[in-house]
Amino acid sequence: MSRTIFASIAALLMSAALAQAAEPIALRDMGSFHVGGRLVEISGKPVKEVTFTPGGVPAKVDPNGTYQVEQMYVQYFLPANEKGAYPLLMWHGGGLTGVTWETTPDGREGFLNYFLRKGWSVYNSDAVERGRAGWAQYPDIFKGEPVFLTTANPFQRFRIGDGPNSYDPDPAKRKLMPGSQFPNEGYENFVKQNVPRWTTTDDAIVAAYIAEIDRVGPSIIMFHSQAGSFGFKVAQARPDKVKALIALEPAGVGDPDKAEVLKNIPTLIVYGDYIEKDSRWPKIRATGIAFGDRIKAAGGSVDIVDLPQVGITGNSHMLMMDKNNAEVAALIQKWLEGKGLTK
Amino acid sequence: MSRTIFASIAALLMSAALAQAAEPIALRDMGSFHVGGRLVEISGKPVKEVTFTPGGVPAKVDPNGTYQVEQMYVQYFLPANEKGAYPLLMWHGGGLTGVTWETTPDGREGFLNYFLRKGWSVYNSDAVERGRAGWAQYPDIFKGEPVFLTTANPFQRFRIGDGPNSYDPDPAKRKLMPGSQFPNEGYENFVKQNVPRWTTTDDAIVAAYIAEIDRVGPSIIMFHSQAGSFGFKVAQARPDKVKALIALEPAGVGDPDKAEVLKNIPTLIVYGDYIEKDSRWPKIRATGIAFGDRIKAAGGSVDIVDLPQVGITGNSHMLMMDKNNAEVAALIQKWLEGKGLTK
Repeated sequence: MSRTIFASIAALLMSAALAQAAEPIALRDMGSFHVGGRLVEISGKPVKEVTFTPGGVPAKVDPNGTYQVEQMYVQYFLPANEKGAYPLLMWHGGGLTGVTWETTPDGREGFLNYFLRKGWSVYNSDAVERGRAGWAQYPDIFKGEPVFLTTANPFQRFRIGDGPNSYDPDPAKRKLMPGSQFPNEGYENFVKQNVPRWTTTDDAIVAAYIAEIDRVGPSIIMFHSQAGSFGFKVAQARPDKVKALIALEPAGVGDPDKAEVLKNIPTLIVYGDYIEKDSRWPKIRATGIAFGDRIKAAGGSVDIVDLPQVGITGNSHMLMMDKNNAEVAALIQKWLEGKGLTK
Repeated sequence: MSRTIFASIAALLMSAALAQAAEPIALRDMGSFHVGGRLVEISGKPVKEVTFTPGGVPAKVDPNGTYQVEQMYVQYFLPANEKGAYPLLMWHGGGLTGVTWETTPDGREGFLNYFLRKGWSVYNSDAVERGRAGWAQYPDIFKGEPVFLTTANPFQRFRIGDGPNSYDPDPAKRKLMPGSQFPNEGYENFVKQNVPRWTTTDDAIVAAYIAEIDRVGPSIIMFHSQAGSFGFKVAQARPDKVKALIALEPAGVGDPDKAEVLKNIPTLIVYGDYIEKDSRWPKIRATGIAFGDRIKAAGGSVDIVDLPQVGITGNSHMLMMDKNNAEVAALIQKWLEGKGLTK
């Protein structure tokens, strides 16, 4: 190829990239709300005097009384030029918040911007107990203690690192899965996105997600990891309001004996790479596929995609953050279009 | 007024309102990041087996190791047509998160949308320990216990209710301040925005805010209540990077002996209504005014606005949520324009 032609193509590619980067996101509205939750009484505790600001004026705080607990936070972005047939709800995984879908840990656009730019109304939430949802006293209200993760913990568990000692504070010394697409240089930022979690709040989380869908109306749910059971269970509770399910590496499923309830809801289940190398994921994936089979046996439509089998390789459990996240998003977008869910 | 003219005016007002509602928000980018924090070692604790999802595969969680703590969450919205000379950082008050600046509890646009529509790049954050910033183990890492507030607690303390028994679960039975502009019918939603807080994390919060301004660069800070001390202290730590300070009902101040450091930073301090009726606010306001006087004595420019004195009445402590919040925002916008901080 001559230098001139090469330079012209390079210039063309660059201007196309710049044009894309410069394309504004036009919103007809954006905002947030809380949904769900319940009131709980606490009694018999002594009044405290709390100085909220050092050097400030002390205020009496009576811990006895009524508490608002188990509500959920939802932030919405509504595109000016709507192309999705229904709003797209994004439900994060365990120990995480809606930040999962925002900018990737290495600073690229995440799924929220991707699907917003494609014309979907996106409702991104923090489940009960996480992020802007707030959390309640334990053991008075929440049962059990919260779980905190070390910086190293998710590295192997989320199939980024290859083996139990794959993590090292120095990014250059980490042993990544061969061909990993996780943005290793942004791992510290990903760790900063992790928040404490309980393992005893599932019923409250499901109740709040049901409250969300009751408020937003007929919707498509995209859900990840821990939200596997939430997505399928909420769809079983509100089958008329769920218009499609997109399960990204679901760690749990719904009630297999009620799989028939989901038969009219188009469902996509996506798994990343390195499943067979992991000690837990072959079983987790088998559970998901068995659940999908139950829906199919009842006459439902379930598409299961193992990304490596369609030529998309290197994906960790956090596939919405991987370097090829736009490729994964495009696969989902194409599936949605194929199901007639775009205008 | 004749019926025809009245109907014409009503139609005109309605179409103007609709036109305003329909005006899209054009963003050249939006996203989020975390900043700041530090690593802490925990050792000598037993390994736990945790089943993260009911019916799922148990995973071993070793609580010993390195923890990422005290980071902060920042969400940004950059307008396509930028008119602010510097980015506008919004810092919420105690027991709250960045939700403070979003949709009001009764569903109207908050300060975030207002200033974004005026062409400001807005960086809205959750301070250390709050919301999407996450929080750390106590007493291992955070000292002391978190404070939880009853549903009734903020009602009088934030100068919404008139007197100690002004709150009632039934909105119709509440005793509001005479002429209150707080959206009483949305009070339950405001309560859902409250999150647990510590009173021992101020230094970590200040460090993270400094990390934010070091990353974003020269900025204007709008800060509320508990963030009073944070806004002034961070400006004292980074006087060259803070281009203006907008203190909304600051509950604390900076170091009075270093007031001179702030002399080149235009400062606006705003107080709402009912200060004199409250047991704590006369002293809190006096502290703020005394601090402003120290800056002025050192040659600085400080404007103090008591809203009732300029004809804006009925404001609670949460003036960015009050029914006249657009009026308060317009006063701030006008002040910013007057200081030459718009393009």
